[in-house]
Amino acid sequence: MQAAEWAGNMADNGCIFCRIVAGEIPCVKIYDDSWVLAFLDISPVSDGHTLVVPKVHFATLDQCPTDVVSRIADCASKIAPVIVTAVDADGYNVLCNNGSAAGQAVDHIHFHVIPRWRGDKVFARWPAGKYEPGRAEEIADRIRENLRFGR
Amino acid sequence: MQAAEWAGNMADNGCIFCRIVAGEIPCVKIYDDSWVLAFLDISPVSDGHTLVVPKVHFATLDQCPTDVVSRIADCASKIAPVIVTAVDADGYNVLCNNGSAAGQAVDHIHFHVIPRWRGDKVFARWPAGKYEPGRAEEIADRIRENLRFGR
Repeated sequence: MQAAEWAGNMADNGCIFCRIVAGEIPCVKIYDDSWVLAFLDISPVSDGHTLVVPKVHFATLDQCPTDVVSRIADCASKIAPVIVTAVDADGYNVLCNNGSAAGQAVDHIHFHVIPRWRGDKVFARWPAGKYEPGRAEEIADRIRENLRFGR
Repeated sequence: MQAAEWAGNMADNGCIFCRIVAGEIPCVKIYDDSWVLAFLDISPVSDGHTLVVPKVHFATLDQCPTDVVSRIADCASKIAPVIVTAVDADGYNVLCNNGSAAGQAVDHIHFHVIPRWRGDKVFARWPAGKYEPGRAEEIADRIRENLRFGR
C-alpha cells in the first residue's frame, strides 16, 4: 500500500493541517517522510509538544487505513524519546483526541507527543471510578457483540 | 515478524498486565489475538474505558518493536468506534502514558481508549502556552539533531 493511493483525501478542503502539509502554512518541522509530518504544536502544553499527522486527510483514528495508523504510531514511538532527550523531560504522553467531545480541535487526525516532567501537573486530573457489580460485564458484552476484526 | 519472537519478554516478572495476559489475574476481556489483549480498565475514567496491551512485555512505546506498535495502535483504532457505539459516546481519546512522570501506573505499555461525552470534563485541563520568539526553532533544532530514522 502506498500513501499516494489516498492522495484524493488531501483536497482543497480548508483543513489547516492539510495546508501545513502542502506548505501553504508554515510550521516548525520535526520530521517528515512520504506518509507523515511531525511539527511543533503552536500552542504547546509543554516544551517540545509535537503533533504527528498523516499527509493525507482522515478525520479520526478509526477512519484511517491500517497502514496509516501504523505509520503515525511508529513515528510517534520513534520521535518521542528523541524529543524527551532534547528537552530533558522525565516521560511523555502520546494522545489522540477523536471528536470535539474528546478535545479534538482540528478534524485531521493527529497524535500529540507531550513531554512531561515530574510534578508538572499538565494532566493532573484522572477521575478514575469503579463499576457497580455486573456493569463492566454488561458493557463488555455490548462491545464484543459488535466487534469483528482481525488480520 | 512473529509475536512469539519476543516471548522471552513475558517472564515471571511480577508485572500485573503480564499476569492478566497469562490468565493468572482475571479481566473483563474485550478482544484478544496473538499480539494484543484489550480489557476494561478496572478503575475507569468513563464507562467502557479499555486498555490495549501487547501480550509481550515492553515498558514504554519507544521500547516496542515497530510491529508491536502497529498492532496496538491498529487494535485501538478498530475497537474504539465499537466501544463508542456500545456506550453511546460522542468521541474518544487514545492515550499512552510513558513513564511515571507522565502518569504511567503499570510499567507494561498500554493504550487507554477512553469514551467521551460532550461536557463530561474528563480531561478539562489543557494548559496550552506560547513559545517566546526563537524558542520553538531552538527546541526543534535540538530534536532534529538526534533524529535519524525511516523505513
